[in-house]
Amino acid sequence: MIRTSLTDLVGINYPIIQGGMAWIATWELAAAVSEGGGLGIIGAGNAPIDWVRNQVQAIKAHTDRPFGINVPLFSPFAAQVIELAIEEQVAVMTTGAGNPTPFIEPLKNAGVIVIPVVASASLARRLERAGADAVIAEGEESGGHIGSVSTMSLIPLVTDAVSIPVIAAGGVGDGRGLVAALALGAAGVQMGTRFICTDECIAHANYKGAIVKANERSTLVTGMSIGHPVRCLRNPMSREFESMEKAGVSEEQVIEFGTGRLQMAAMQGDIVQGSLMAGQISGLVHDIIPAAELLRRINDQAEALLARMATWAQPEEVTG
Amino acid sequence: MIRTSLTDLVGINYPIIQGGMAWIATWELAAAVSEGGGLGIIGAGNAPIDWVRNQVQAIKAHTDRPFGINVPLFSPFAAQVIELAIEEQVAVMTTGAGNPTPFIEPLKNAGVIVIPVVASASLARRLERAGADAVIAEGEESGGHIGSVSTMSLIPLVTDAVSIPVIAAGGVGDGRGLVAALALGAAGVQMGTRFICTDECIAHANYKGAIVKANERSTLVTGMSIGHPVRCLRNPMSREFESMEKAGVSEEQVIEFGTGRLQMAAMQGDIVQGSLMAGQISGLVHDIIPAAELLRRINDQAEALLARMATWAQPEEVTG
Repeated sequence: MIRTSLTDLVGINYPIIQGGMAWIATWELAAAVSEGGGLGIIGAGNAPIDWVRNQVQAIKAHTDRPFGINVPLFSPFAAQVIELAIEEQVAVMTTGAGNPTPFIEPLKNAGVIVIPVVASASLARRLERAGADAVIAEGEESGGHIGSVSTMSLIPLVTDAVSIPVIAAGGVGDGRGLVAALALGAAGVQMGTRFICTDECIAHANYKGAIVKANERSTLVTGMSIGHPVRCLRNPMSREFESMEKAGVSEEQVIEFGTGRLQMAAMQGDIVQGSLMAGQISGLVHDIIPAAELLRRINDQAEALLARMATWAQPEEVTG
Repeated sequence: MIRTSLTDLVGINYPIIQGGMAWIATWELAAAVSEGGGLGIIGAGNAPIDWVRNQVQAIKAHTDRPFGINVPLFSPFAAQVIELAIEEQVAVMTTGAGNPTPFIEPLKNAGVIVIPVVASASLARRLERAGADAVIAEGEESGGHIGSVSTMSLIPLVTDAVSIPVIAAGGVGDGRGLVAALALGAAGVQMGTRFICTDECIAHANYKGAIVKANERSTLVTGMSIGHPVRCLRNPMSREFESMEKAGVSEEQVIEFGTGRLQMAAMQGDIVQGSLMAGQISGLVHDIIPAAELLRRINDQAEALLARMATWAQPEEVTG
């Protein structure tokens, strides 16, 4: 078992957090990840507070292990979700798409561990000063809403900038990615795309199948023209989106075109007209397995790799 | 010393290749890198064959260690540069921007090691079949001409696809990046941006200074609209380039605007109107030092990290 400042902070077996993907990071997946020794996360997305409350009740009925909630701060229910996390004494709150500073103190006072997602060293530094317990530094190879800096470049810079634990997200799909993230200075990883392809994730089988079929060049980025880049798989929808943006249509048209597309793909299985949000790591996903098995597999691969690497600085050994 | 299939293949001390940047990867830098234990590369760029021949003569007068030449296959002199490499029995030929298949056999017959740069697993597989001795897999966080897949995502996919050594490029600026690349399955790294900031690189002091000053969000990508994405630092020139592309000007106008800009920055030191090609790793570059010192520093950092990592899979140790 790989012990890091993240496993110590949260009380988990593996330094692996499951991404809080809107619509599909439900209690079923989060419970399976937490029971499996990682940190399961319920993705609140833009969902109404009652939905989130039901999710929290359901996961509590299925696991006693730590879990978290992710809320993107643009959600109209963001403040209510944070109140709920406090009431329910949720172990971890991860936040995205905004500055969580006003929420950090109340969450921490209630004993909730606060881990914002950042895409730059400067925001990481600011949030450490505001009291964040750790940060998730997300590279632009991730699926869904992204920043502009890749994981390889971002992690060393963020770990140099702060002394709280840094969790690497983006481009991590197996034990090699976990060990690479640790080498870059991270205390663990967050994975989204890889966890979609687990038995417990409620995403539509067509969506999972599209990820398994994809290679590393299968993604593109939509929404750049309106300043909200989103990485998803190439399909008729995302190619049309790309053409509209190149043609310079209005922001309103872009937003109207894009709205509701994730749900179409993730829930209804429309892989033609839906937005198949996924990271570049899709090319590394070859199967759909139980979340606990995935966690064990990644840990075993990482441990074996660490053991091999221990010998690499010695002249008689050859790697690569 | 970290021994890998790359150090064995080329006969170098450190698994580190210097990128063959046009204009500024001259014999001065390449000789310093090769003398320092890495693999120095002369960047032929679009330069006339006589210039390249003079460079080869000069480096041979300064080092007996292996060195290489890089040629982008769009150079009008590409075939002549390859002939020269054969005549001069250069140790390594790296190629970019095209398919080097027709050149592989003649180079190998002359004992030249052939290492093409690729940005996808599929091209790596094709070039392995064509006889390439290794490939450099370049992530899109690199400076200059880039592909679309990040290093973290690309390296595991390429190493799964081929059995020849894979060298990681893009996002590598220190020993952490080297160890991360090895963890992902690479046999070494190629670094461009970091080597610009060495004493021996002839790049203008203004260019080096701009890289030292940059942070990880200082780069942008120009040329996407004409299918030739180039990563460079944000400056008045690249911002204007970006605006022109957004406004949808013609391909001719884009090419006219962009031509000659690297030379303006790299040689004349015009950091306002020149193209400061550089990778996202610019944020990790804090000093200008001799190339040999840089190589030693990266090796020492990597060895110390490997020694620490050896203990990470044991429960009593804590990392991150």
